[in-house]
Amino acid sequence: MSTPIQNDRLLRALRCEAVDRPPIWLMRQAGRYLPEYRATRAKAGSFLKLCMTPELACEVTLQPVDRFGFDAAILFSDILTVPNAMGLGLHFTDGEGPAFEHPLRDVAAIDRLGVPDPETELRYVMDAVRTVKGTLAGRVPLIGFAGSPWTLATYMIEGRGSRDFRYAKALRFDDPAALQRLLATLVDAVGQYLAAQAAAGADVLMLFDSWGGALDAPGYRKFSLVPMQRIIAHLAKAAPGVPVILFSKGCNGQLAAQAQSGATCIGVDWTIELAQARQTVGPNVALQGNLDPVALFARPEQVQAEVRRVLASHGRSAGHVFNLGHGILQHTPIESVHALVEAVHSATQDVVG
Amino acid sequence: MSTPIQNDRLLRALRCEAVDRPPIWLMRQAGRYLPEYRATRAKAGSFLKLCMTPELACEVTLQPVDRFGFDAAILFSDILTVPNAMGLGLHFTDGEGPAFEHPLRDVAAIDRLGVPDPETELRYVMDAVRTVKGTLAGRVPLIGFAGSPWTLATYMIEGRGSRDFRYAKALRFDDPAALQRLLATLVDAVGQYLAAQAAAGADVLMLFDSWGGALDAPGYRKFSLVPMQRIIAHLAKAAPGVPVILFSKGCNGQLAAQAQSGATCIGVDWTIELAQARQTVGPNVALQGNLDPVALFARPEQVQAEVRRVLASHGRSAGHVFNLGHGILQHTPIESVHALVEAVHSATQDVVG
Repeated sequence: MSTPIQNDRLLRALRCEAVDRPPIWLMRQAGRYLPEYRATRAKAGSFLKLCMTPELACEVTLQPVDRFGFDAAILFSDILTVPNAMGLGLHFTDGEGPAFEHPLRDVAAIDRLGVPDPETELRYVMDAVRTVKGTLAGRVPLIGFAGSPWTLATYMIEGRGSRDFRYAKALRFDDPAALQRLLATLVDAVGQYLAAQAAAGADVLMLFDSWGGALDAPGYRKFSLVPMQRIIAHLAKAAPGVPVILFSKGCNGQLAAQAQSGATCIGVDWTIELAQARQTVGPNVALQGNLDPVALFARPEQVQAEVRRVLASHGRSAGHVFNLGHGILQHTPIESVHALVEAVHSATQDVVG
Repeated sequence: MSTPIQNDRLLRALRCEAVDRPPIWLMRQAGRYLPEYRATRAKAGSFLKLCMTPELACEVTLQPVDRFGFDAAILFSDILTVPNAMGLGLHFTDGEGPAFEHPLRDVAAIDRLGVPDPETELRYVMDAVRTVKGTLAGRVPLIGFAGSPWTLATYMIEGRGSRDFRYAKALRFDDPAALQRLLATLVDAVGQYLAAQAAAGADVLMLFDSWGGALDAPGYRKFSLVPMQRIIAHLAKAAPGVPVILFSKGCNGQLAAQAQSGATCIGVDWTIELAQARQTVGPNVALQGNLDPVALFARPEQVQAEVRRVLASHGRSAGHVFNLGHGILQHTPIESVHALVEAVHSATQDVVG
């Protein structure tokens, strides 16, 4: 907080100020496609241990910044740390992803939930933020993050990843008041968690709403967007001046509503052109995205052509944070990422002028 | 063809003519949620045998029409019959879905593909159409269907269902000309296949573009929508007057372009409200949809409330074909489907007036 940020391209782009070129970082940039990540992950023994050991979390957080010169670091962590701190018993199974030992299967379980205190029950996250901030020493901004209440609720109710969200949606239809109580608890938990990350040094905060797109349109607004708006309103007081990025995957039909949420920046997936997204959200909200992560499996010159297309679609560098439309995939060739970064660093001179 | 259709509600709704209430049918209405389907399926021995035996395919096609009084029958078949007839060797594995023995893994394999003759190489489908038409004897219209060229291409290139379509998308970026040759072959194959279904008696034709939503916006238009437009243009000559329903799942950002495709009706998934979809496509194209299939896991009275919301969102019965936003799910309670049908049959009096 006290150290000034040397590369503040991301912060200026988020404020829609002029920048020499769009900042670039990638969702899931610290991850399995990097050999140095796999080495640290092996040292940690498990994914959760890696999240819970501040020095190792710091190590992997910085790896992609060191290798690619990204304009931001994003804290290495997981959205399910919060429900884990609420007592649901998070574990990861190889190949099957996250699961909870105690999913919420009745209203009594929902009503028993408490709001975890970030500095005690999620202290390892706050320590990781402080360790990363100290190590970064102001090189680039640090992004802290959390899952959206709706997205966390789906995991907590289903007990694991789901394709159809049958239990969460049944609750939505059959006992919407119970779902709203769960979401209200999560609004408090996530709001306090993000505010604590900002207090510990995070320069930017991001809400990942991975499953907002599973809801129908009125359901999205009521159960996904409104809880996120409440968190953003809380952060405006608890962490004033800290930009918030909101990303609901698969919700491009709701961009206009998202632009009214109070978020500084809206993340968009690859199924809409940035020109159309810009027209929908107006000039005062930054946009983040939106190259298809699978485009990175093309040849490097094709990757660069796609980067130029994305940059040209937005047109101006102010208000554009270059990113993928979703997290980078495990088997992504590293030379593609180098080609991607090079294209953002150089071709913008032609495209943005 | 010669027998007049007694219940022509679907045909009139597709022409945006006045109807007493919206017609209703459900994607995948002949399927595993029905005990009578499971009995016929067991008799057939395998899913493919069921598709390939006209009498059994006819039996399951009529089951949901008999049970629920739906306003249309849809031929029981599979979109992968076409690539199977092209020599890719379709088989189904329990729990893992469809797979091809000979996926397209190089350009030579693409260039070797021929266009199957529907009345010889896909004769079992045409026989099923004729059998169903004879048995229906004009009760309700029969919908024939095919997969879109892009959707078929993804299965043919990946060899099976895919989450990220890595091979298909890599081909798109690295050798778009080869992908276009594959799509051109599929345009011919699907165009002839659908025209033959119409000649055999299908009253309505539908293009299922299950994976259009995986593409970015320019890719969707180039590789998914344009091939479908070519098929629709072919059908305008080869099967004049036969309505065509186009459904690209997860492509609501492209509704305006879809409305210009020449299709009679656009299918929409549940992530957009019909009022917004109607505004986007204008008054002259019918809309089909769009209840979340998971809503059928709610209590019957909640199902009916959701039906009324969908009906009210469209507002008028002309130009609305009631359906789910995707196929009905395997474990759907049958009483929910009864409640759904009842709500469409009755509540429209209140909603549509």
